[in-house]
Amino acid sequence: MLASTIQEYQQRVDNQLKQRFNTLEDSAPTLKAAMTYGALLGGKRIRPFLVYSIGRMFGLELDKLDACAAAIECIHAYSLIHDDLPAMDNDELRRGQPTVHIAFDEATAILAGDALQTLAFEIITEPLVGISSEQHIAMVRVLAKASGYRGMCGGQAIDLASTNKNIDLNALTQLHNMKTGALISCAVELALIAANAPKEHYIAMMDFARAIGLAFQVQDDILDIIATTEELGKPQGSDTESNKSTFPQLLGLQGAQDTAKQLVQEALSVLAKLPYNSQLIADFARYIIERRI
Amino acid sequence: MLASTIQEYQQRVDNQLKQRFNTLEDSAPTLKAAMTYGALLGGKRIRPFLVYSIGRMFGLELDKLDACAAAIECIHAYSLIHDDLPAMDNDELRRGQPTVHIAFDEATAILAGDALQTLAFEIITEPLVGISSEQHIAMVRVLAKASGYRGMCGGQAIDLASTNKNIDLNALTQLHNMKTGALISCAVELALIAANAPKEHYIAMMDFARAIGLAFQVQDDILDIIATTEELGKPQGSDTESNKSTFPQLLGLQGAQDTAKQLVQEALSVLAKLPYNSQLIADFARYIIERRI
Repeated sequence: MLASTIQEYQQRVDNQLKQRFNTLEDSAPTLKAAMTYGALLGGKRIRPFLVYSIGRMFGLELDKLDACAAAIECIHAYSLIHDDLPAMDNDELRRGQPTVHIAFDEATAILAGDALQTLAFEIITEPLVGISSEQHIAMVRVLAKASGYRGMCGGQAIDLASTNKNIDLNALTQLHNMKTGALISCAVELALIAANAPKEHYIAMMDFARAIGLAFQVQDDILDIIATTEELGKPQGSDTESNKSTFPQLLGLQGAQDTAKQLVQEALSVLAKLPYNSQLIADFARYIIERRI
Repeated sequence: MLASTIQEYQQRVDNQLKQRFNTLEDSAPTLKAAMTYGALLGGKRIRPFLVYSIGRMFGLELDKLDACAAAIECIHAYSLIHDDLPAMDNDELRRGQPTVHIAFDEATAILAGDALQTLAFEIITEPLVGISSEQHIAMVRVLAKASGYRGMCGGQAIDLASTNKNIDLNALTQLHNMKTGALISCAVELALIAANAPKEHYIAMMDFARAIGLAFQVQDDILDIIATTEELGKPQGSDTESNKSTFPQLLGLQGAQDTAKQLVQEALSVLAKLPYNSQLIADFARYIIERRI
């Protein structure tokens, strides 16, 4: 059930993205190709999955969630393109494929990331029957806050500044809450806004989001140690190689695994208290720490 | 009158930007410093001037225009930071000062540009008494369209692809309509949206915007030939140096000057037909082709 739904939503958001890339004129064909390549390079589409599945849990139809799912994936894709640049993480492979600056060139990769960020804000304000202007504004603000200085960009800056330094657990947690957690929380929040979730449930689901966002990162750190290069689509042990602080490094492998498990338990206990059918989301929360990729 | 108003609005938008940078926590101090440096590196603040002066012409108070002015300047600032990067135009000086990747480093410059773009969308949706959610949504959409693939980013991609190539006048015009014209038109349009301008006047002012946007670029090309390095704040003749197609190259210096003059006449004739006090804007339109910097 979970695996087939992940795949269904993955295909759905890919189609949504393709549709929107197809409407772009061919005035700058290389840029268009690079945006398309970078955004459709595969990946689990975790953020769109959260948008769709949590929107559904609150009773919303999928077509009301398409714009949010496509927009947040554009932000995620842009961040990967820029993070991979030589001046940043200098990665030549992403999901086993050449990164955008390798498949195209650096200038095009910078512009493709820039234009994908802009496109996210265009998509999220697409007029949609049943979504009010107030909801759209709330979505823009949530997406901007999660992506910018207070969220993802700030987190990446702290990450770069922390490389080759010892940082403590609090600092590492803050870094990841900003770098990856903010956008995962944002996916949840976009669905809650679209579904007009009751305030009390909205607040509870944001606790759920924080827990799975961090669990996701802890598991990523664990996989960098225990998964194979083939599973990862990038060199195994690359965190250690690049002297990045990780949860296993600070807590030990077992300690990190226990932390991830505890975070998932917290997330599950939030779901258990809510009056919705949350089986799919609960399965997803458990999957976060069971996954190998 | 024009000179003092330009200065007044320049200071006003700088204060607006400073206020917003000051509200950012110090979690990523280098990134914050780079964003502030890049956005406050000086400059004529043409786009904020257009927002303020056209909003005023339509009877709106300045405080209803601050967010639009600050947001569009964040977009402009981000585009300069990224355009200056080694992989793009590789400029080490901007307005006589080290560019952001020189004053900081490349990774920080990429992130500062990214976060400034995001900040623009956060600022433009700040709640404001007298501006409806529908107006805010329209602003987001106009800003996104002008900044992204269909506008500024697309224009920069075409510009990079056109370097070292001969392109004709139509292609050069389209390039500049996208690369710089779109954001200048956007400044005008944001003011029209904020002021709830009557539809007929709105359409007329968009013609005005297209004319001055292109005049501005033609004059920039002219100045690259006739102004001094000191006036430009960057090496004189750098367009020729980098093999870029320019209006003087395609039309001759006199032809380019005639074109700029004619565009300004078109802009003035739009203003003359409208029932507003447009003296300040008319002076500004004339200034575009009289300026030396």
